[in-house]
Amino acid sequence: MVARATLHSGTLGGYGSCDTAAERETAMVSYSNNKQDYLARLRRIEGQIRGLQRMVEEDKYCIDVLTQVSAATKALQSFSLSLLEEHLATCVVDAARQGGEQADIKVKEASDAIARLVRS
Amino acid sequence: MVARATLHSGTLGGYGSCDTAAERETAMVSYSNNKQDYLARLRRIEGQIRGLQRMVEEDKYCIDVLTQVSAATKALQSFSLSLLEEHLATCVVDAARQGGEQADIKVKEASDAIARLVRS
Amino acid sequence: MVARATLHSGTLGGYGSCDTAAERETAMVSYSNNKQDYLARLRRIEGQIRGLQRMVEEDKYCIDVLTQVSAATKALQSFSLSLLEEHLATCVVDAARQGGEQADIKVKEASDAIARLVRS
Amino acid sequence: MVARATLHSGTLGGYGSCDTAAERETAMVSYSNNKQDYLARLRRIEGQIRGLQRMVEEDKYCIDVLTQVSAATKALQSFSLSLLEEHLATCVVDAARQGGEQADIKVKEASDAIARLVRS
Repeated sequence: MVARATLHSGTLGGYGSCDTAAERETAMVSYSNNKQDYLARLRRIEGQIRGLQRMVEEDKYCIDVLTQVSAATKALQSFSLSLLEEHLATCVVDAARQGGEQADIKVKEASDAIARLVRS
Repeated sequence: MVARATLHSGTLGGYGSCDTAAERETAMVSYSNNKQDYLARLRRIEGQIRGLQRMVEEDKYCIDVLTQVSAATKALQSFSLSLLEEHLATCVVDAARQGGEQADIKVKEASDAIARLVRS
Repeated sequence: MVARATLHSGTLGGYGSCDTAAERETAMVSYSNNKQDYLARLRRIEGQIRGLQRMVEEDKYCIDVLTQVSAATKALQSFSLSLLEEHLATCVVDAARQGGEQADIKVKEASDAIARLVRS
Repeated sequence: MVARATLHSGTLGGYGSCDTAAERETAMVSYSNNKQDYLARLRRIEGQIRGLQRMVEEDKYCIDVLTQVSAATKALQSFSLSLLEEHLATCVVDAARQGGEQADIKVKEASDAIARLVRS
């Protein structure tokens, strides 16, 4: 953890935990840099979704609604790409350094998440 | 409008307007069937986005957050595909029947919206 | 057919048939405008795929291979968006004018194709 | 390289090089396991693209052409996801172990490639 914080302090700040829910019970870490940025982005997306509800309520033209849906989808994608980059830079890099099975597990897990993103 | 309502009453119910904002000022139409379904779907998606904020707040594992983002993205996509199908079945079909330039305009507009969806 | 050719002569030229394989056996129509353009695009994509094989053969750097895959995927997408626009402007518009069940069938079919594109 | 071959021999075989074109001039490595699989997949995709050309030549129904395009796109996506997983498991993991700037560079590069895939 210390190593990571040092290494990536300039670039990525760091949100989240590299441990799954089960592992984390003992070691709670909250990194505050990117977290506020992530929350702000999600709040903006929530605003876009509420805007969409208003558009539907007011019978706005379908094509205009679709344009807004594309914007919200792009914002979600961009959010997940940032999250993924940070995950690679912290959790996957850490696991690689620890070596052994853990590296393989983290790579497989990240690859599965990437596949879900690419296919959604 | 009457023709459309008759034609598609069984299949698509019908939300929205085939007219752009400018055209609609005089002829306000609100179709209530699909509208409630669309609003319900958007409220569920809003709930997913708020769920994501909670996950980030609580430092949930990145991969789990990413899984939820994929679910929300899929829900948005599915929403826009329904909206688009209804738009084709009502506005584009109506314009085709009116013929002339209007058909070309609606087809171009729908194609551009599809391109934005495919690329987002 | 004549009506369509007249209507879209300036914009879309026209490739393909609005009839499914079964219907078409008796009425073979070959429109030559866009067809040559479509074939040229597919040949370019084929060239990109062969280029990818060469890159793999020569152990090119993964990231460079991935960049080329993205380019080929975008070219395929762009090809399908053109094809779809033409399909809407000809087959779907024609079916809408004929009215009846045929319009509903064509809209459903096009919507399913769009869903496959969006999800692939 | 030895470390990697040992580590991933069971899982990933290994195609390609973790070095960019410039770096590779001195150290040519050709890993043969996955390479044959990758080439076989690309040849199948090339066959799909040629099949598409035949369909266009024979004026096949647009919707059937679009279905084939979706299949080819999915095959390309699946190819790139495999390549990316291997890249993470070998090049990114290796760079992480070497530490320093190299890890950051490889993570950034992989993230950019993922963004291109997600957006294409």
